[in-house]
Amino acid sequence: MKHLLTTTDIPIEEIREILDEAQAFSEGAAWQPEQQTFVANLFFEPSTRTKCSFEVAERRLGLQVIPFEVNASSVLKGETLYDTVKTLESIGVGAVVIRHSIDNYFMELTERVNLSILNAGDGCGHHPTQSLLDLLTIRQEFGHFIGLKVAIIGDIRHSRVARSNASVLKRLGAEVVFSGPEKWFDESLIDFGTYEDIDVATKTADVVMLLRVQHERHGEEESFSKENYHLLYGLTEEREQQMKPGSIIMHPAPVNRDVEIADTLVECERSRIFKQMENGVFVRMAVLKRALIKGGNEHVHHHQKWSVAY
Amino acid sequence: MKHLLTTTDIPIEEIREILDEAQAFSEGAAWQPEQQTFVANLFFEPSTRTKCSFEVAERRLGLQVIPFEVNASSVLKGETLYDTVKTLESIGVGAVVIRHSIDNYFMELTERVNLSILNAGDGCGHHPTQSLLDLLTIRQEFGHFIGLKVAIIGDIRHSRVARSNASVLKRLGAEVVFSGPEKWFDESLIDFGTYEDIDVATKTADVVMLLRVQHERHGEEESFSKENYHLLYGLTEEREQQMKPGSIIMHPAPVNRDVEIADTLVECERSRIFKQMENGVFVRMAVLKRALIKGGNEHVHHHQKWSVAY
Amino acid sequence: MKHLLTTTDIPIEEIREILDEAQAFSEGAAWQPEQQTFVANLFFEPSTRTKCSFEVAERRLGLQVIPFEVNASSVLKGETLYDTVKTLESIGVGAVVIRHSIDNYFMELTERVNLSILNAGDGCGHHPTQSLLDLLTIRQEFGHFIGLKVAIIGDIRHSRVARSNASVLKRLGAEVVFSGPEKWFDESLIDFGTYEDIDVATKTADVVMLLRVQHERHGEEESFSKENYHLLYGLTEEREQQMKPGSIIMHPAPVNRDVEIADTLVECERSRIFKQMENGVFVRMAVLKRALIKGGNEHVHHHQKWSVAY
Repeated sequence: MKHLLTTTDIPIEEIREILDEAQAFSEGAAWQPEQQTFVANLFFEPSTRTKCSFEVAERRLGLQVIPFEVNASSVLKGETLYDTVKTLESIGVGAVVIRHSIDNYFMELTERVNLSILNAGDGCGHHPTQSLLDLLTIRQEFGHFIGLKVAIIGDIRHSRVARSNASVLKRLGAEVVFSGPEKWFDESLIDFGTYEDIDVATKTADVVMLLRVQHERHGEEESFSKENYHLLYGLTEEREQQMKPGSIIMHPAPVNRDVEIADTLVECERSRIFKQMENGVFVRMAVLKRALIKGGNEHVHHHQKWSVAY
Repeated sequence: MKHLLTTTDIPIEEIREILDEAQAFSEGAAWQPEQQTFVANLFFEPSTRTKCSFEVAERRLGLQVIPFEVNASSVLKGETLYDTVKTLESIGVGAVVIRHSIDNYFMELTERVNLSILNAGDGCGHHPTQSLLDLLTIRQEFGHFIGLKVAIIGDIRHSRVARSNASVLKRLGAEVVFSGPEKWFDESLIDFGTYEDIDVATKTADVVMLLRVQHERHGEEESFSKENYHLLYGLTEEREQQMKPGSIIMHPAPVNRDVEIADTLVECERSRIFKQMENGVFVRMAVLKRALIKGGNEHVHHHQKWSVAY
Repeated sequence: MKHLLTTTDIPIEEIREILDEAQAFSEGAAWQPEQQTFVANLFFEPSTRTKCSFEVAERRLGLQVIPFEVNASSVLKGETLYDTVKTLESIGVGAVVIRHSIDNYFMELTERVNLSILNAGDGCGHHPTQSLLDLLTIRQEFGHFIGLKVAIIGDIRHSRVARSNASVLKRLGAEVVFSGPEKWFDESLIDFGTYEDIDVATKTADVVMLLRVQHERHGEEESFSKENYHLLYGLTEEREQQMKPGSIIMHPAPVNRDVEIADTLVECERSRIFKQMENGVFVRMAVLKRALIKGGNEHVHHHQKWSVAY
């Protein structure tokens, strides 16, 4: 079994291997497991992109995807996440993709199950396939990470990728700065990069990585109107015109148009937003292959032993 | 790319081709795309028949159907239909089937996406695969349309098919009359056919095409009890006995039994209601083939270009 | 067509055949229908285990599973169960798996449809695949049923399997006793077995079969706290230590940990709880094969006849 939980616990060399594998898939490489293999996608929070992207990746690898709808499951009867996952393991599922609102939900699972867990987002913590697809998109563009300046701008407090992207980018040799509302800048981020004014950041970065304002996670504190946020911290048409030659725009989507980014820029020449989504499929194929090759539920008969007394 | 949006924008010759293709599928013809092909069904309104029918048609063509549940998607985070469809395109989906409550929802999409859109019902406007399966059922029965009298009876104001069926039937040479509550007869329908008393219509038509009373779309204005509606405008056992020899009964379903039609008539000898459902699969196979052969997302790498700087 | 409705209406000899088939599947046997075959799972009540288990079984047999979500279907528009099933039959579905809250919901269907119905649980009545997987698990353990003592303990009033398991176990030669809250012991159960004190039952049984307390089905009458129930009627660590050598623990799950059974015992050496889930897949493969071989919707063109008048 080979989980994918966070990017921070993966050595740089292995991250490069995953990106190489994803790149190969993007260029037409194919791989399928030898035996019929079952996976399930457990999304305890809404998702279009990540869920559908995993689905496409799974089908491309010839996997059988068992539908699992939280709202029609025994979770409604109070079943725990562990019992749900253990049930899927028992019926022969080899890997589960999970999105859950609880930080590090996987901590209670990894030691106790035999199938592979692929984290598709936990709480405000991690979203490793998003990080990996961001890295792939940057590498396709620039061919390397060393010396690149990446500006992570926006809702850095609630984002699953701000911290983990910053950490892995720094390990890969890039320089990271943060921007957006200064009150959302957390002291603990200083390990990865400094806070920079939005106009400086957008003008000097090779990669302007915008984060979605997660209205649904903010409480009353939110003191910006949409228009206000856009003017103060969004990528306006004016700021885009000041970006340096060859620099690109990224955003994990879904985009709040005219909030984080001007509507007209979402598909502009610098934008790699839909390219990121395309790369998401290849990255997910790579981590699924990694999970299933190095382990997965081999579905030996269940470890509960019995002696037949004829 | 070859969308299917309305029947009114398809030339008669092409409608005949689609019906021929559907007929061939009903007689056992097979077709599958050469490459693994992804589709998604986006139903923003409840459906059993149309959604399951598309699913069966898609599987028969060997397509990979990516599950999409509106209530577990980023639509909940406010994502627009355009961004949702563009996302699916980016991850490699070649055709989307959409049902949506907004009239002509597809107008904002067709010029801006590269995949095929198949309209599975929009607002009170169109439902082209329903029209096509109705046409196939009539053609199987009578072999032609010229001179046939088709009575469209019931909720002609809220029906997606009343107007579009009337239009295409007239173009094919049939005579159309409307019946049901006279106050639901819209002046604009006069281009396609006149209003006729229910007892005359059912007695003289070759095809009695009943429409579902859409309780969920009527407001307070609804002034009929179920029993009352049935007596005044429904196909009662008495009216069925007056129907002319060889004439048939159609209904798009779901049926309100004992409202539009007597419970005992739903599966009577004249009824083609379940035959229509069977034909729905063949018609949907035909339009999916048409969409995927003439276009679809060829999934060239995304048009956002980049230059690799090693 | 060959339905699976209850275990009580299946002859003992045929039950043995199903178990043999399931055992063969558990040892690696394979079977697939010759033609592309469609099935649908209609779950009108929440389920993880049974629904996912049927899904895995269906995919292992190479079946095409048509997704059906009650909450996105025409059931919302008031469509009856019969019309829903008839619709699925019309579009080519050969077997439907149904869970429904109404006792014997299938009575109104079986005479009127041509596809196979597999009951995945009705009201408080039956749950035949659960019974069969229980039988398979017991037979794997002991090799026979004659003379075994099975204690069915807990919510015997609301359980779908208490009565039907008791009935079939008695027919197979086992001795059944019931335990748990005495007020939940129904006089009609006396045909199958007597009531026994929990401490006697757990000490003397070969199989301790615990039932889930169905909080969601109890009204105000429920007078036990969780802790209280566990002490009085649950399998505590103390009771487990008194169990006889070679005896096993079973539970249909989802488990209420520390209510019916101590948390620490769920995966103890005696427990066959996850083994039961594993066996569920094999039993469901066997009954699906039985349904599809002996019948199923052969999808001849729909019985509504027509004469083509050229």
